Amino acid sequence: MYLPDHFCEEDAAEIAALIAAFPLAAVVATTADGLVANHIPLIADGETALIGHIALANDLHRSLADGAEVLAIFRGEDGYISPNLYPTKAVHHRHVPTWNYQVVHAHGAIRFRYERKAIMAAVGKLTRQMEDRVSGPNAWRMADAPRDYLETMLDAVVAFEIAVDRWQAKSKLSQNRKPEDARGAATALEAAGHDVMACAMAAVIRKG
Amino acid sequence: MYLPDHFCEEDAAEIAALIAAFPLAAVVATTADGLVANHIPLIADGETALIGHIALANDLHRSLADGAEVLAIFRGEDGYISPNLYPTKAVHHRHVPTWNYQVVHAHGAIRFRYERKAIMAAVGKLTRQMEDRVSGPNAWRMADAPRDYLETMLDAVVAFEIAVDRWQAKSKLSQNRKPEDARGAATALEAAGHDVMACAMAAVIRKG
Repeated sequence: MYLPDHFCEEDAAEIAALIAAFPLAAVVATTADGLVANHIPLIADGETALIGHIALANDLHRSLADGAEVLAIFRGEDGYISPNLYPTKAVHHRHVPTWNYQVVHAHGAIRFRYERKAIMAAVGKLTRQMEDRVSGPNAWRMADAPRDYLETMLDAVVAFEIAVDRWQAKSKLSQNRKPEDARGAATALEAAGHDVMACAMAAVIRKG
Repeated sequence: MYLPDHFCEEDAAEIAALIAAFPLAAVVATTADGLVANHIPLIADGETALIGHIALANDLHRSLADGAEVLAIFRGEDGYISPNLYPTKAVHHRHVPTWNYQVVHAHGAIRFRYERKAIMAAVGKLTRQMEDRVSGPNAWRMADAPRDYLETMLDAVVAFEIAVDRWQAKSKLSQNRKPEDARGAATALEAAGHDVMACAMAAVIRKG
């Protein structure tokens, strides 16, 4: 990824927060059929692994060798930035459009896990994380489903772990702009409903 | 991509609309350094090509041979679907969580273009599309910037075209659920601000 120093995200907490807030990763691999991507919610297991699961019917686990290189791409909000959003445009007009976004790339080796214990762990961790967020005290639990039904569903999935050997993260948040211009862009993104990115831009402006 | 028939998106208008509404693509390629992804706004040129531009400083145009295979991934909104959102959960509890999303994959050959005319076309088309959308009658035009500044900016980018040989699109919108359950999920996604996806789900429910 093209990654100028001023857009390089090295804050581990920010990277972890982005993954947790936007868990649906594009998991990319090279197979005999060329490049393939699957969209899979992943959860981080510390700073060295990502855990997920796919349908047994998904050929990915049959088309990749154990330990094959994959790239998991997480992406937060994004938005077009018009020169009109910069107050200094009226002064010198030396601006062009750009795009702001936050992404995290995790490169690593994928290994599929067919044992029920690994599948239960992958499905259970993701369910707990998401239910705590969206359902709170009314969180749906796996035990809420009838046992026979749950067993059938678990039989239909495969778990996997990506052992991450390289992280790369980019926060393109107008860091290369004057504070008043960055503020103008952040205000417009917030108005467009991109609260997470507007908040990240506000933090960048505060840090200066 | 794992693509069961009921999630296969074959409506060319829906695919074009998704690309236009969510232009920031993850452009994935295989280089000598392994898998790389760059996040680049693209515009469709009919049904057979995608057009974009990158910074001259981005090594992508130096690391890919002319005609190299790339995968451009467009993604719309996405959301976790809790079993709690399905009214029939209370009846039989035979539900598990899932994730809804819309994606478009374009596979094709990339060719970089260094002539000023191609660069002007790529930058100009994207600017017009985005400014018409976000600025309307106050659209920023390239001619608003001083000539010398604009020339310097254009010197710093490279255009490219992806000749698309295969489209693959997936609209995972609860098509495999009963209408009342799909409606419950759509209502929750709308409440979470995912209007585009909620609208697409409503269209699926109407079609039956």
